[in-house]
Amino acid sequence: MSTITVKAYGTESKTADLQEMNIERRETTPKDVEIEILYCGVCHSDLHTARNDWGGTMYPAVPGHEIVGRITKIGNDVTKFKVGDLAAVGCLVDSCGTCESCKKDLEQYCLNGFTGTYNGNDKHLGGHTFGGYSEKVMVDENFVLRVPENLDLAAVAPLLCAGITTWSPLRHWNVGPDSKVAVVGLGGLGHMAIKLAKGLGAEVTLFSRTPGKTEDAKQLGADHVVISTDENHMDSVKGKFDVIIDTVPYVHDVNPYVATLNISGTLVLVGYLGGLEPILNTVPMIMGRRSVAASLIGGIAETQEMLDFCGEHNIVSEIEMIKMQDINDAYERMLKSDVRYRFVIDMKSL
Amino acid sequence: MSTITVKAYGTESKTADLQEMNIERRETTPKDVEIEILYCGVCHSDLHTARNDWGGTMYPAVPGHEIVGRITKIGNDVTKFKVGDLAAVGCLVDSCGTCESCKKDLEQYCLNGFTGTYNGNDKHLGGHTFGGYSEKVMVDENFVLRVPENLDLAAVAPLLCAGITTWSPLRHWNVGPDSKVAVVGLGGLGHMAIKLAKGLGAEVTLFSRTPGKTEDAKQLGADHVVISTDENHMDSVKGKFDVIIDTVPYVHDVNPYVATLNISGTLVLVGYLGGLEPILNTVPMIMGRRSVAASLIGGIAETQEMLDFCGEHNIVSEIEMIKMQDINDAYERMLKSDVRYRFVIDMKSL
Ligand SMILES: [Zn+2]
Ligand SMILES: [Zn+2]
Ligand SMILES: [Zn+2]
Ligand SMILES: [Zn+2]
Repeated sequence: MSTITVKAYGTESKTADLQEMNIERRETTPKDVEIEILYCGVCHSDLHTARNDWGGTMYPAVPGHEIVGRITKIGNDVTKFKVGDLAAVGCLVDSCGTCESCKKDLEQYCLNGFTGTYNGNDKHLGGHTFGGYSEKVMVDENFVLRVPENLDLAAVAPLLCAGITTWSPLRHWNVGPDSKVAVVGLGGLGHMAIKLAKGLGAEVTLFSRTPGKTEDAKQLGADHVVISTDENHMDSVKGKFDVIIDTVPYVHDVNPYVATLNISGTLVLVGYLGGLEPILNTVPMIMGRRSVAASLIGGIAETQEMLDFCGEHNIVSEIEMIKMQDINDAYERMLKSDVRYRFVIDMKSL
Repeated sequence: MSTITVKAYGTESKTADLQEMNIERRETTPKDVEIEILYCGVCHSDLHTARNDWGGTMYPAVPGHEIVGRITKIGNDVTKFKVGDLAAVGCLVDSCGTCESCKKDLEQYCLNGFTGTYNGNDKHLGGHTFGGYSEKVMVDENFVLRVPENLDLAAVAPLLCAGITTWSPLRHWNVGPDSKVAVVGLGGLGHMAIKLAKGLGAEVTLFSRTPGKTEDAKQLGADHVVISTDENHMDSVKGKFDVIIDTVPYVHDVNPYVATLNISGTLVLVGYLGGLEPILNTVPMIMGRRSVAASLIGGIAETQEMLDFCGEHNIVSEIEMIKMQDINDAYERMLKSDVRYRFVIDMKSL
């Protein structure tokens, strides 16, 4: 299969800084579109993959799965897009298409394993996939999203991971105008959860460990902020929430949040992979039919639904724009949660 | 309020055997029916309450919340029943009627606390309520169930607790003809879960630690039995079940069962109150939008729905009939799981 050389930004090892490099991408196949990447959001997964924090990183690693751009070329069989269209790509660029999950538009749970936008197994060239920290990318049109024209394009980028990761559980657990939703953690995911839940008409509460985030949360649309370290404050919201979106990425005690779930309520973990410590107590669960669940990104159709919804409701991410060359500093700042609320790379800088 | 003296069987302390005693019950109020108790099922909660295993037992304790009988008297305002009707009473005899849960027919989650059939706070006489190990009971008609005439009356009794406790989660999590359901534990609850899930049209699997229960499980309607101590056998059902009803009443590792949940599947604990040890791992949950939930008995309307369903599908409990005087021996046998699958007291013996 013929390839083209594309400028990118990546790393050769877990200890090296990211730097400019050339990568090979396939020529557009008949089902592919070629996207000139204009903006790429910076997700915590990018950093963890670059540094092999989870193991399994294949090098050179080119992160980036919050991609927006413009279509510069289409394959002969492409029907959904034309040259010049805005387009976006999220965390997935392929899946088997035939399993029970794929048949239900749940490609993120493909039983044969979805192809990640980066560090996935490249079905076309062999080797592994390269992400959005690059000039352009070729993607099967079925994994490409349409972007509403009315939105700030740079601020759309984080919707492709942070947005859909919070949207999918809000929709699956039927959040709407009568819902009371709480969000744990105010980062890239948390701030999108507030905006999207509010957009769906819910009454939204942020759980925060310190009062310092109250103003910000309210500006983002939160109706209330509850200080999770204040026992009286926590007691005042016992049994209140229909859905809690827990975006905290490290081990933490979920029991105090479970106690704030309404009868039949569900706490959904979207950030934490690992063991639930301290141990989960089933007593408050059984006494109110409460659930603890977890959710991963979202399917392609659901991502399109979310983008269309954001277009209608004028919802985008809060971003801080950086140059490609600033990425290593940006990673350090992310580790200190020093970003409101998502870095987005202006790819012109590459 | 005037009372009548009723013969019962109960205990004066946590260490004493149950024995015959007299208790005072209210005269029927205008909204009450008086039920002559014909049969009463024996639930593990009876034993735990008699022996104060959970703390909080008020003595004398008269257990029993799987009650079937015949109406012998009705209050002036009773509209749903007449003298001579069959009737049943389960775990609840009252609730506030005005909270959000009660308004949704979820009296078991009454925000002001439901009144248990025994060891509850008696709103009429003060003191505490006495259960079904007695000649008769007076209950507000709104907490009395109709019993299908075609069923074996003694075998109906366990439906009032073991039946509804498994029916409610099967219904809440939408089990139907396309569902794959698994049941953990083959006791009073587990054997009802198999029968009810099968009645709803699901494909039903029993998880059992030993092959010894395979024949029994299949006779009860299970399509498959998976030996949970056999890793290969467990691997063969990875990702299979839409709903798992976990009836195990003691601490146990749920992680191997979570791994057998289908995408978007839910494991529902109905037997265990306490901490989930070993710790619950969120990775298989997030990778398939899986949930761990818990559920308590069921509401009155749902209990009636279950009884009507059992009438239509000829479903009753498997029982071993005992005399009232055998109750202390029966408790010892229950502790050894030496019962298939529920003791029912023939109240004529009192
Ligand atoms: Zn991401
Ligand atoms: Zn698939
Ligand atoms: Zn019971
Ligand atoms: Zn109530």
